[in-house]
This record gives sequence, C-alpha cells and structure tokens, in this order.
Amino acid sequence: MKKKSNNLIGIIMGSKSDWLGTMEHCSHTLKEFGIKHDVRVISAHRTPKRLHKFLKEAEKNKVQIIIAAAGMSAHLAGVTASLTTLPVLGVPTESKLKGLDSLLSTVQMPSGIPVGTLAIGKAGAINAALLAVSILSVGDKKIKNKLMAYRSKFEKKVPKKPF
Amino acid sequence: MKKKSNNLIGIIMGSKSDWLGTMEHCSHTLKEFGIKHDVRVISAHRTPKRLHKFLKEAEKNKVQIIIAAAGMSAHLAGVTASLTTLPVLGVPTESKLKGLDSLLSTVQMPSGIPVGTLAIGKAGAINAALLAVSILSVGDKKIKNKLMAYRSKFEKKVPKKPF
Amino acid sequence: MKKKSNNLIGIIMGSKSDWLGTMEHCSHTLKEFGIKHDVRVISAHRTPKRLHKFLKEAEKNKVQIIIAAAGMSAHLAGVTASLTTLPVLGVPTESKLKGLDSLLSTVQMPSGIPVGTLAIGKAGAINAALLAVSILSVGDKKIKNKLMAYRSKFEKKVPKKPF
Amino acid sequence: MKKKSNNLIGIIMGSKSDWLGTMEHCSHTLKEFGIKHDVRVISAHRTPKRLHKFLKEAEKNKVQIIIAAAGMSAHLAGVTASLTTLPVLGVPTESKLKGLDSLLSTVQMPSGIPVGTLAIGKAGAINAALLAVSILSVGDKKIKNKLMAYRSKFEKKVPKKPF
Amino acid sequence: MKKKSNNLIGIIMGSKSDWLGTMEHCSHTLKEFGIKHDVRVISAHRTPKRLHKFLKEAEKNKVQIIIAAAGMSAHLAGVTASLTTLPVLGVPTESKLKGLDSLLSTVQMPSGIPVGTLAIGKAGAINAALLAVSILSVGDKKIKNKLMAYRSKFEKKVPKKPF
Amino acid sequence: MKKKSNNLIGIIMGSKSDWLGTMEHCSHTLKEFGIKHDVRVISAHRTPKRLHKFLKEAEKNKVQIIIAAAGMSAHLAGVTASLTTLPVLGVPTESKLKGLDSLLSTVQMPSGIPVGTLAIGKAGAINAALLAVSILSVGDKKIKNKLMAYRSKFEKKVPKKPF
Amino acid sequence: MKKKSNNLIGIIMGSKSDWLGTMEHCSHTLKEFGIKHDVRVISAHRTPKRLHKFLKEAEKNKVQIIIAAAGMSAHLAGVTASLTTLPVLGVPTESKLKGLDSLLSTVQMPSGIPVGTLAIGKAGAINAALLAVSILSVGDKKIKNKLMAYRSKFEKKVPKKPF
Amino acid sequence: MKKKSNNLIGIIMGSKSDWLGTMEHCSHTLKEFGIKHDVRVISAHRTPKRLHKFLKEAEKNKVQIIIAAAGMSAHLAGVTASLTTLPVLGVPTESKLKGLDSLLSTVQMPSGIPVGTLAIGKAGAINAALLAVSILSVGDKKIKNKLMAYRSKFEKKVPKKPF
Repeated sequence: MKKKSNNLIGIIMGSKSDWLGTMEHCSHTLKEFGIKHDVRVISAHRTPKRLHKFLKEAEKNKVQIIIAAAGMSAHLAGVTASLTTLPVLGVPTESKLKGLDSLLSTVQMPSGIPVGTLAIGKAGAINAALLAVSILSVGDKKIKNKLMAYRSKFEKKVPKKPF
Repeated sequence: MKKKSNNLIGIIMGSKSDWLGTMEHCSHTLKEFGIKHDVRVISAHRTPKRLHKFLKEAEKNKVQIIIAAAGMSAHLAGVTASLTTLPVLGVPTESKLKGLDSLLSTVQMPSGIPVGTLAIGKAGAINAALLAVSILSVGDKKIKNKLMAYRSKFEKKVPKKPF
Repeated sequence: MKKKSNNLIGIIMGSKSDWLGTMEHCSHTLKEFGIKHDVRVISAHRTPKRLHKFLKEAEKNKVQIIIAAAGMSAHLAGVTASLTTLPVLGVPTESKLKGLDSLLSTVQMPSGIPVGTLAIGKAGAINAALLAVSILSVGDKKIKNKLMAYRSKFEKKVPKKPF
Repeated sequence: MKKKSNNLIGIIMGSKSDWLGTMEHCSHTLKEFGIKHDVRVISAHRTPKRLHKFLKEAEKNKVQIIIAAAGMSAHLAGVTASLTTLPVLGVPTESKLKGLDSLLSTVQMPSGIPVGTLAIGKAGAINAALLAVSILSVGDKKIKNKLMAYRSKFEKKVPKKPF
Repeated sequence: MKKKSNNLIGIIMGSKSDWLGTMEHCSHTLKEFGIKHDVRVISAHRTPKRLHKFLKEAEKNKVQIIIAAAGMSAHLAGVTASLTTLPVLGVPTESKLKGLDSLLSTVQMPSGIPVGTLAIGKAGAINAALLAVSILSVGDKKIKNKLMAYRSKFEKKVPKKPF
Repeated sequence: MKKKSNNLIGIIMGSKSDWLGTMEHCSHTLKEFGIKHDVRVISAHRTPKRLHKFLKEAEKNKVQIIIAAAGMSAHLAGVTASLTTLPVLGVPTESKLKGLDSLLSTVQMPSGIPVGTLAIGKAGAINAALLAVSILSVGDKKIKNKLMAYRSKFEKKVPKKPF
Repeated sequence: MKKKSNNLIGIIMGSKSDWLGTMEHCSHTLKEFGIKHDVRVISAHRTPKRLHKFLKEAEKNKVQIIIAAAGMSAHLAGVTASLTTLPVLGVPTESKLKGLDSLLSTVQMPSGIPVGTLAIGKAGAINAALLAVSILSVGDKKIKNKLMAYRSKFEKKVPKKPF
Repeated sequence: MKKKSNNLIGIIMGSKSDWLGTMEHCSHTLKEFGIKHDVRVISAHRTPKRLHKFLKEAEKNKVQIIIAAAGMSAHLAGVTASLTTLPVLGVPTESKLKGLDSLLSTVQMPSGIPVGTLAIGKAGAINAALLAVSILSVGDKKIKNKLMAYRSKFEKKVPKKPF
C-alpha cells in the first residue's frame, strides 16, 4: 500500500466540465495500473490560491507527477509548471476553436518551464496517464511489467478486420 | 504632476526581447500623451513572485491599468488579470507561429477573468497605449481633449496619394 | 440612481442572432453588478447611419464604455472605435469558421484605433462585461468592492472535485 | 476621351504602404487597358470622413467600380461597400499573419453587403484590375477586344520550358 | 422582357448538394430583383465538357455574369474564369474543413485570371447575387433604384432590439 | 532504350518559377533512376489549350504518369486529372500563405477525380519522382532493384551523429 | 481469376472506426472495378509487428499498391512507405481538428519516402481506390476501359439541374 | 560516475539539420546539469532499422528517457514510443509550414502510445532537456537541488528593465 502512495499522481483540471468524457479516462487508465492519484478542480485564473495550496500538499505527500487539463487560453499546466519542479503533463481540452487554442496555450511554453503536452481531449487524457505510468515504470519493475502487459494486449484488442 | 501619477499605467512584458520594435512603441505612445508609466520585465513562468510583488506595489501606487505583453504560450496577461481587479490589456508578441499562439493564449480567456486583447506585435503595442488613454479619458477632460487632437491629426498624417 | 446612469454602458451587436446564447450573458453579468446599460442591434454594414446616431446619443448620455459584438468579417467594433474616443471592447461571435474570422477581424486593428478584444462567443460576452466593470471600478470604490466580492465567490463556485 | 472617363475606376487603399509592390500593379494593369482611374489613400479607421467625401465625388464623377485594398482587420472594402451601391472589389494585403487576417476580414462579409475579393497581395492587385476590366468589357466591345487580346498573349508569355 | 434577358446571369455549381441551403438563396435573391438567370450543375472535374458547352451558349445568350459555387479543391470558378472573359464570381461552399479549403481554392487565383470571391456558404451565395445586381446596376438606372430600395429596407428589417 | 520510353513521365508546372529550387529536383531524381521524362510549363488558367494538347501527345507517347506542380489556387493537377485516366501526382508549391492554399487546392479533390498529393515544395518534388519510380517498379524488376538500392543508401547517407 | 489476383491491393487502417463511413467506400469502389483487395486493421503505434508481417505477405502475394488510412498523428501511411518499395497511398481520416492533423501528418513526408495523399475522409477513401485503379490501368487495357467507362458515366450521374 | 550513467538520456533527431540552432540546445542544457546523454541521427522513415537497434541498446544501457526531434510529418517520436515503454518526449522542429505540421504530427498521438510534446524549435529543445531533468529529479535529491538552483537563477537572469 505504502509503495502505491509513493507513486501518487495529481490530476487537476480547470473546470468541472473537463471531467466527463475527458479526464475521467485519465483516472480510469491510472486505475487499470493500480496507480493512486488525487483529482481536483483548480482554475489557474479563478482559484489561483487553491493551486499554491495543492502544490504545497503535493510536495509533502510525495506526489511525483502532475497532470493538468484545461481549455481555451489554457494556462493551468504552464502556471503549475512554473510553481513546482515536479514533471507536469498537459492535456488541452476541446473548445470552440476545436482545441487549437488549448493546444497552443499548453504546448508553446517559452524555454525554462516545460510542459509535456498530450493530444487534445480524450486521447490526450488517456495518454497523459500512460506517459505518467511510463515515467514511473523506469524505476519500478512491477509497473514496467504492467505497462508491457498493457501494451501486449493491443495485439488482441485491435481487431484484424474492421467488419 | 500629482495628477499624472494618478494616471500611472504599468507596462510589463515576459521577456527583454519584447521591448525593441514592439513595446517601446507602447511607451512612446503614452509619452505623447504625457501619461506616466512604469516598465518592467516580468515572466509569468520564470519570475512568478516578481509579478505578485509588482501587483502589490501597483495597487499601492494607484496604477490604474496594466498592459501585459508576451509571446508563445502567452500567460502573462491572463495570470496578471487573475491576481488583480485592475483592467488588464494584453499584447500578443510575435513568435515562430507568427504570433497565432500568442494571440490565442492571450485572448481566449475563459469566462471570469477578462483580458482586453490588442493586435499581434507593434500595432497592438501602440493600440494598447491608445486604449489605455481612451479609458483614462472617460473621467479626465484634459486627456480626452488630447486624444481628440491625436485623432484629428490622422487626417493630415495619412497622405492622400500613395506616390 | 444618478450615479448608476453615469456608469452607463452601450452594448451593440451586428445581428439579432448575437443575443441568445451570447450577448444576453454580457447583459446578465452587468446586471449582477447593477450597472445600467443599453442594448441595441446595429449593423456596421447594413445600418451604418444608425451607428452614427447611437454614438451621438451615447456621448450625450455619458455612456462610458461601448461593447460591440459581431461575426464573420466583424467590422462593428472597429468602425465604432473609429467614430468615438470612448473605449470600445469587441466580442467576436461564432461563425462557419468557428469564429476565427470574427476574431481576426476584431482584434487585428491597425495602429491608431484600438479595440480591446475578448474571447469568441459566450465567454467573451461575459468577460466584456467584467472588463467594463473592472474599468469602472478604478474610479469607483463601490464597484471595486462588488468586483472583489464577485471574484471571491469563485473559490466557492468552482467545485473542488469534478464528480 | 469622354468614353474613358465613363469607365473611371476608384482605387483606394488603407495605407501608403499598400502601394509599392502591391497596388501599383493594379494601377499598371488598368493602364495597359487605357482605363482611367483615380488612386487615393483612405483609412476606414483613421480617416472615416475622407471615405464619405470620396464616395460622393465618385458617384458624381461616374466612377463605375471601386477597388479597395487593406490589411490586418481589413475593413476598408466592407465599409466602402456599405456606403455605396457601386460594385466593390477587395484586395487583402500582406500582414504579420501572412494576410490570413486581411483575407478573412475582407471576404467573410455577412449577407447584404458584398465585396468581390481577390487573392492576397500583388496577384490580387493585378486581378482586381482584370476583374474590373472584365466587368467593363460586358457593355463595351472595345474593352472586350482588348481583354481577349491580353488573354491571347498568355500563350506567348508563358514559356513552354522552365529552363 | 427583352431587357431582362440582356441581364441574364449564369449560376453553376459543382454538385447538386450545393443547392439546398446555399445556392438556392443566390437564385432567390436574383428573383427579388427580377433578374433572369440560368441554374446548372457543372462539375469542373467530372463534367469538363459540359462547362465548355455552357460557356459557348452563355456567350451566345448574352449572359453577362457567371456565378460559380464549389467546395473542397474548388476549381469550378477558376476554370470557368480561364475559359471566358465574362466576370466570374465565386462562392466557396462548406466542407469538412469548414470551407477553408473551398475558400483558398477559389480566392487565391494567380495573377491573370481573376475570380471575385464571396463568403463561405449561404452568406456568400446571397452576396454573389447582390454583387451581380450591383454590377448590372452601373449601367441600368432601374436596377440601381431597386438596389437602393433593397438597401434602404435594411433599416427596417434589422430590429433595433435583439429581444 | 525503347523500354525507357515506355516509362516516360510528364512533368508539368503552372509557372516557370516552380522550376528552380523545386521541380528541378523532381527531374534530377528521375534522372538518378534513368527514367526519361518530359518537362513543360502549362498553366491551367492561362494556357488551358496547351494542357489539352499536352495530354493528347502524352497518351500517344505512352506517358505513364503525370506529375503536376502549382501554387496558390493550384488547379493544375486537378484539372489534368479530370482530362486523363493516367495517374496524376500533385506537388503544391510555396506561396504567400506558406503553401497551405496550394496544398488544400491540390489534395482536397472531390470524389471521382483523384490526385495523389505530395508535400509542399522541394520535398514534395523529390517524392513525386520517387512515387512515380515506385509505381513503375511494380511491373519492372530493374526499376525495383534500383529503388531498393536507392533506399539502401539512406543508411550511409544519413550520418549517425549530427556534429 | 489469376489475373485479378495480380492486381491485388492492400487496404490498411489504423482503427476499426476508420471503416464505416470512410474506408468501406474505398473497398466498394474497388469492387465496382472487380479489383481484388485485402482489408486489415493495423495500427502503426499499437500493433507495429502486425505491419511488418502484413508487408511481408503483401510482397509474397504480389500486392501492387497499398492504401493506408489513419487519423490524428497519422503515421500509418508514412511508416508503411518506409518499410516497402510498393506505392503507398494515404487517406487522412477525420479527427477533432477536422482532419487537419491527419492530413499534415500524412502528406508532409520528408524527401526520400513518398506517400501519395488523397482528401480527408470519404472523398479521399473513394479517390484512393480510383487512383489505384488508374495506376493499374496503365499496364492493363481492360482496367483502362473500365475506368474510361466509369468516367463517362459522370455525365449522366451528375444531374444538369440541382432541383 | 556510475550514478550518472543510470541517468543516461537518448537524444535522437530525424535529420542532421535538426542539430544546429535546435537540438544542440537540448544537449547543452543537459550538460549544465551534468546529465550524460547520447546523441544520434535516426530517421523514422529512411533508417527504420537503426531505430530498432538504438532502442535495444538503450534498454541495455539503462537509458531512462528518450527525446526525439523531427519535422514535417514528424513520425520519429511516435514510432519510437510505439517500440519502447520508456518515456518519450517529442520536439517538433521548424518547417515550411512554420512547424505546425511537425507539432500536430508529434502531439496528436492516438490513445495508447503517448508522446510528451514540447514547443516548436529551440524553446522545445531546451524544455525537453528540462522536463527530462525534472523527471529524473523525482527520485534523485541531487538533481532536484540542481533543478531548484537552476530555477532560482531566473530571478537574476531575467532583467527587471528591458532597456
């Protein structure tokens, strides 16, 4: 159990609406790997103090990776990255501009403060979880085996014929 | 003199490179109107504490409008707006993507925290100054007269023939 | 009451269809702050004379800020700004091109005539109201307190968990 | 000679900088056809009154077509079209966003007020002249013959081999 | 009656699907002005010979303007313009890329062969009709009066309030 | 020798300016494989008859594949494909919009008339040649061996270290 | 029958979801021409070994052309092209970004490894089949006749009037 | 010393031209932290076998993170990620389309195989190094201290005034 808590991941999102259809899949994917994680709504713009408090707790609780999802002028991942040395992964969520604004706001970080950005929407949410698992797997043989098992299932899960 | 200090405007930019060719024109335009202003380099990502300190001083010094310029994932204006109730005007600066990333990162703010965004680059820098002057002019007859005089010069400054 | 009429804001939009789902939220937000405002449909292209008449009245009635919403080749905010020294805020509304045309037509004003542009659609409509409130709050302690109260409610309104 | 003055075309551009490399080619092309035309710098935003005066004169002088070139939030063609029933052709000029903003601001006119839009920059400037010639040629056999001669020269002017 | 047949306009579109919701509005608008016009489906790619035949007839029948609508790699207007000296107006229709491909394929014609391009979809369809009317109105007082009457109705048709 | 003439490829481009830096590399690549080919400047818009003549000759001379390069509203490849059943490969060339207009005009062909499109500019010019070689290699063992040899050289030509 | 098996085409797609509404039309079109083909789901990323196996079989079974469809960061066509000298045609499928990401990922191949790219979605799926037929038709008189017959039906299938 | 070799990072790039001005800065940044790393040119398309060999060695040599840079249809990072469970970070390099194609090809990975993507060009190259350092810092106090020291220098390195 304790081991798991060492691997804790923090998932934050700018709005409650980022959960259904998007970030719930990030959480589900982490659960498939038995990775404990914490889920919060934190708006970079509307609740800036909440972010500081969350990051203080995160450091104390040995959170190892933070996944931040936001849309439009998506500043959450970048602002988070500027306030911590933990690795920050960004998920741009959909918007009126089809997520192009969210993507550019998340990925085009100036040099100095990096955000590892995934695809727009649900695919990015799942992949943020998988990249976090991959990072954790480097120092943890068990997680690595789980990830290899997860990968090996693709061969079966992807049907050979589309009809 | 004191009157002027009531009209103080804060100009901040994410990088020293935003000055030459871009934000210097914002400052020059304010000078044409005799509007006192303060110029600082503050990076939302690299010097987040500097921003907090600047805003505290700004409130104390009766700064009335903040103009924030940044490029790429341009978070400076949005983050500033989330930390103050003063009006924040944003200038997206040029980038590898021709400023499209800077523009979308600045203007597509989610509801709750507004940034009044101007054009990409030099035109936006000048217009941020002019919009600030326009805002100040609402309650200040002298500035209004100056602005009307500035406008009336266009007729002379714009040549009638291009050759 | 008189005090309020000093704070009058003019909301204009290029087409009746800009109201439902978009600019009604601008009006609702101003009402939350008790800011009196006038709402009109004025098309820069189809009713150019109506715009001149509106601006003359606006100056006379001490309107302090104009919010202009339009879509496609959205010229309303820019043309309005060219005809008045009052601050003009622009809201690009949605279109077949997802509002990208509306946004660029509103924000990319050449130097000389500024439009403070907000996000595409509903978020921009709300934020135009909030930026107007922010501008009015600089010289009006009561409005400033209301704005600070509005902001402080975000902490409660933004849920901590998305589920 | 009088005949020619019936065919007069008005060329207007938002800035002196639209002439060299761009609108001069529009004028040169009209000259190849012996079409008299008038060239003016008129900014929709900075000299709005000049536009009204120009259009009044244009109607009086039997100008038949107006060609309007502008960049960025290019409102000149649209605003011109809203003030006259003469056909208006628009030339989007280059900008920091490679003319994409100029193009969308010119072409995406809402229904009611049309602008016949040509390509961005020099090609559009030449083609605006050629479209004007084509329009004039419908009712004028001489111009039609000149246009057919101009076209027939392409076969010779376009080399058969690129080396 | 004969007079009307002098004003005949040819409307062509690349696919039957361009009619409902789009080009029918072009036809309706011309009908409001009593302008006789011919409507055809002609695909630049799938029925290239049909286009040649149509243009031959058009010249013979004194068609004065051609309006061509197409989507995706929209070549119809450009190819038509290369085969006739009549003025060609282009309407880009909607597509998977929201009409951006149709717009660029129609408007970005290289110098030599112009297409006067209108907005994407229904607005462009109506405006193509109105630009054609405007062109015809230059030499025809009756049509000019109708166009001025049409314009003057905007003031009544555009409601003053959106609610 | 006769065998080679069976493999003849036709390279056409919309303008002489498409040769240097772009289509010359298409020709050079074919020469590396000893594939005979013919190079012509043919403008879909300015020399439409030249295209018909070229295609008639091409069929007679047993040309097997046509490579068409053009920029802006790049109609050359699509129009060519509509006039022949030979396979047509398209190379979008650079433009003011960085080739985005050329690319969409070439690749977004409506169903019925295909154009196999390559990358914008020089890379696309080389790859059009290589795709033509690949097509020819299916029925020609010698060409297949040359293509495999060409590919196997990559391992040597791509340096292992970048410094 | 044997003849047909010489013309075998391989259709692969990155996900089962690329079949309905998109790649089924590619298969239907090939069936109209009696061209035998094989259909598989192969993900460049999730089943990389399956691709190697498929290509080995393809070479053995004398597959002559491969059609590869994928969306988002669509690597399938490019990766396939890097592993075979057979001609590879790419179909970008729709995505959250309307297929723009799929298109650029498929078409912008660096020089050395070509992918002949068709339009986004259903039109591209049909056209990939037709380009394959066109390629096969070069050396096969029967297929050429079928293709010419298919083309000649357009004149009847495209209605002359849209209503 | 051995400790350092545990932290080895693999930097690969699709072309030698990705080094100067771009990926050299990734290497320089890792050197500032004393992180040992290996630099290779590996093309996903032109040297696919080299990639397999590199990854086999990487696993053996305990490489912990792979940074992959490529341009245009940038498949290198995605293909690498499909062949290893190590975390893969992607740097889109500049291209004719300003890196938009490289960015979308790298970041829009379908669910299952993640690539943590950084900004286009030099900023992304530096940030890929910094994100790798951040990942390594989670389990390594020394690196964490170095990263915190690096961050704390920003306050000094970012000048307070731009002039």
